[in-house]
Amino acid sequence: MNAEIIAIGTELLMGQVINTNASFLSRELSLLGIDVYHQVVVGDNPKRLLEVIQVAEQRSDLVILSGGLGPTKDDITKQVLADHLTKKLILDETTMEKIITFHENRKRTMTDNNRLQAMVIEGSTILKNKTGLAAGMFLKQKSKAFILLPGPPSELEPMFINEVKPLLMGESKEDIHLISRVLRFFDIGESQLAAELDDLIEHQQNPTLATYAGKHEVRLRITANGSTAVACFLLLDNMEAIIQQRIGSYFYGYGEDNRLVNVVADLLKEQKMTLTAAESLTGGAFQSSMTSISGASDYFKGGIVTYSNEIKTAVLGVSKEIIEKSGAVSAECAIEMAKNAQRMFGTNLAIAFTGVAGPNMLENKEVGTVWIGIAVNGKAAFAKEYHLGKGRDNNREKSIMSGLDLIRRVLLNLPIQQKVFETINN
Amino acid sequence: MNAEIIAIGTELLMGQVINTNASFLSRELSLLGIDVYHQVVVGDNPKRLLEVIQVAEQRSDLVILSGGLGPTKDDITKQVLADHLTKKLILDETTMEKIITFHENRKRTMTDNNRLQAMVIEGSTILKNKTGLAAGMFLKQKSKAFILLPGPPSELEPMFINEVKPLLMGESKEDIHLISRVLRFFDIGESQLAAELDDLIEHQQNPTLATYAGKHEVRLRITANGSTAVACFLLLDNMEAIIQQRIGSYFYGYGEDNRLVNVVADLLKEQKMTLTAAESLTGGAFQSSMTSISGASDYFKGGIVTYSNEIKTAVLGVSKEIIEKSGAVSAECAIEMAKNAQRMFGTNLAIAFTGVAGPNMLENKEVGTVWIGIAVNGKAAFAKEYHLGKGRDNNREKSIMSGLDLIRRVLLNLPIQQKVFETINN
Repeated sequence: MNAEIIAIGTELLMGQVINTNASFLSRELSLLGIDVYHQVVVGDNPKRLLEVIQVAEQRSDLVILSGGLGPTKDDITKQVLADHLTKKLILDETTMEKIITFHENRKRTMTDNNRLQAMVIEGSTILKNKTGLAAGMFLKQKSKAFILLPGPPSELEPMFINEVKPLLMGESKEDIHLISRVLRFFDIGESQLAAELDDLIEHQQNPTLATYAGKHEVRLRITANGSTAVACFLLLDNMEAIIQQRIGSYFYGYGEDNRLVNVVADLLKEQKMTLTAAESLTGGAFQSSMTSISGASDYFKGGIVTYSNEIKTAVLGVSKEIIEKSGAVSAECAIEMAKNAQRMFGTNLAIAFTGVAGPNMLENKEVGTVWIGIAVNGKAAFAKEYHLGKGRDNNREKSIMSGLDLIRRVLLNLPIQQKVFETINN
Repeated sequence: MNAEIIAIGTELLMGQVINTNASFLSRELSLLGIDVYHQVVVGDNPKRLLEVIQVAEQRSDLVILSGGLGPTKDDITKQVLADHLTKKLILDETTMEKIITFHENRKRTMTDNNRLQAMVIEGSTILKNKTGLAAGMFLKQKSKAFILLPGPPSELEPMFINEVKPLLMGESKEDIHLISRVLRFFDIGESQLAAELDDLIEHQQNPTLATYAGKHEVRLRITANGSTAVACFLLLDNMEAIIQQRIGSYFYGYGEDNRLVNVVADLLKEQKMTLTAAESLTGGAFQSSMTSISGASDYFKGGIVTYSNEIKTAVLGVSKEIIEKSGAVSAECAIEMAKNAQRMFGTNLAIAFTGVAGPNMLENKEVGTVWIGIAVNGKAAFAKEYHLGKGRDNNREKSIMSGLDLIRRVLLNLPIQQKVFETINN
């Protein structure tokens, strides 16, 4: 079965309202195994709405219309659909009673338009509206199904969950399970990931594969269908094994909302580690990211932003000699920043960021040159160099992600390429 | 002229991404006097995309396609449109150079897909992408115009404003000037602002008014048209005077991209002030915001994150007595944090944030209770209390905006309500 979502409302075409209903409905329908091939928005105009319905019923099995069920003259949806299907509008007593009670309770006068709101298309199943007045409708004509929903998300969403979902699940004859798994990768671009999995993506059937580029990370969703959940999991496991073999070194976690910072936070909690940071080019953004997570106080007590060299030496105690000899953007400085922060804030793990965010070069070093330093109890402190790019925001964000990944690798004892260790006399 | 917006991307049909591009484009087009009658979303499927384009060009003068210009196999937009218009894809040298440089700088290997990204439809005007790699395109065939834009809003929005808008204005034959002015407001909701300007919005003709809700701020765009620029500016000035009289106390600046943090940064630079921060509930996010601006080192040298009470006392030197007596979420603590940070980092201005971000209460204080402290050379330090709300992210973000507004008011000697000053014995 495939579905088409038609949102009706001139306010959508003026850009005054964002069409969140379309994404809500699409998400819910995909979870039911119903493919959405088209979303359409059209204004409160009978002729154009009719044309859109005619196109939709030719190409889609299920047509969901949202909006235009209210009490104003602009609300034309049910009239246009009823005329098109040569059906009448009839009074729904239950809705009428609800509307009368609503007006009585608020001591408001009812208008003819209010009465019109109680009219429904004959032969349709009424979908109860627990959070508003307009009734929804479900009806079938020949092999096509139509669903009419109110426009406000506060009415549409509960109506879909409580009324539409059970109806649609009843429609599907076969007992098909649809299970997804999301893998998350860092430090690999969407195009590189797609190239590595080219053959799998090209010939995908069951499971299907879809990639999503996030900020400095890529999600890969594997979706399997089968007659049992176990069959689905088997398909997912097999596909994941192939993928992990190819690009497992970039993999950092599972789940739609499980960002790299969440993975690191969970590891810190599990291992009862405490973390501090000394930030130069990232200017507080790394610590902001760590404390964005509720419960951060378990592993994060505080840290420092040392934006200028003067503060690096005067407050954090980085030796002037290091800055004069190697510069602030150097392995030596990153390592000393991390070690001193660890001491200052009394943690067993510390990270330091120093680099050239841009737009201008610094110490004759290219924009995008970044050193991240790590000090961890019982091990030698080290630093790692990165060459990120031209954009200031990009360099700050990518530094944070790289720092998080570095901590993850340290905590999991994973290999880290090209570490630079502190020299002996430090 | 009427337009149709086609967004391409299976992620939209899966409901994983909300189609904010459609509302952005609709809003911008309506300001140009171009009616949008249809918005459509279709997946990364050549056959269905072709059908949608065929329907669109029958009913619309201008067809805008967004998405599907990226480097993966799913990115089919330009190929499908080129085939349909029987045009070839040709190499755009400028885009190619950009892509090569991008990969060289990051020491990444280029794939064939990356090279494909430099291909454009022959005969089209190239729309520059200042924030990404994919070039946009504008082309006309018979009486129809097509515009291709990249999918990410961070690329689509600047490309529309900088490249598409002038083109579309050039399309209009008459010599009409269209000039916009954006006013920015903090601490007033979009609905309150709309209510205050209800009559102006209701009867708008020339200038037109459009409100945009941002995060904790509202932008109001006034657009005037006239036969000369002077005539437009006169209309804008008159309208602005009325608006400033009504809601001027919330106004903080002009311009589409002139965020509150930019206004504060400019003031600090103008007045040659230096700023530091001590952050508890905001956890580094305020400093991250300040250092997001290029050239921040002029006024920002560094600061501290004191997430735990232990760090507040041991590192920042807040007296244990204050924390025991008044708690960390108190005027006394906020003031002492600001004063000590000012001393520690040697600045003439310091701000401190302490509060209950949530989700749990702290010191028996409600979630959303925040104290912001200010220490400034030559004046008595003070703190101000806020009651923000329930959400953790909201409380952190609103705290930062409130802090920025407080600094702005201090620097401009504007009135600040309900200040709490430090007690004499401190």
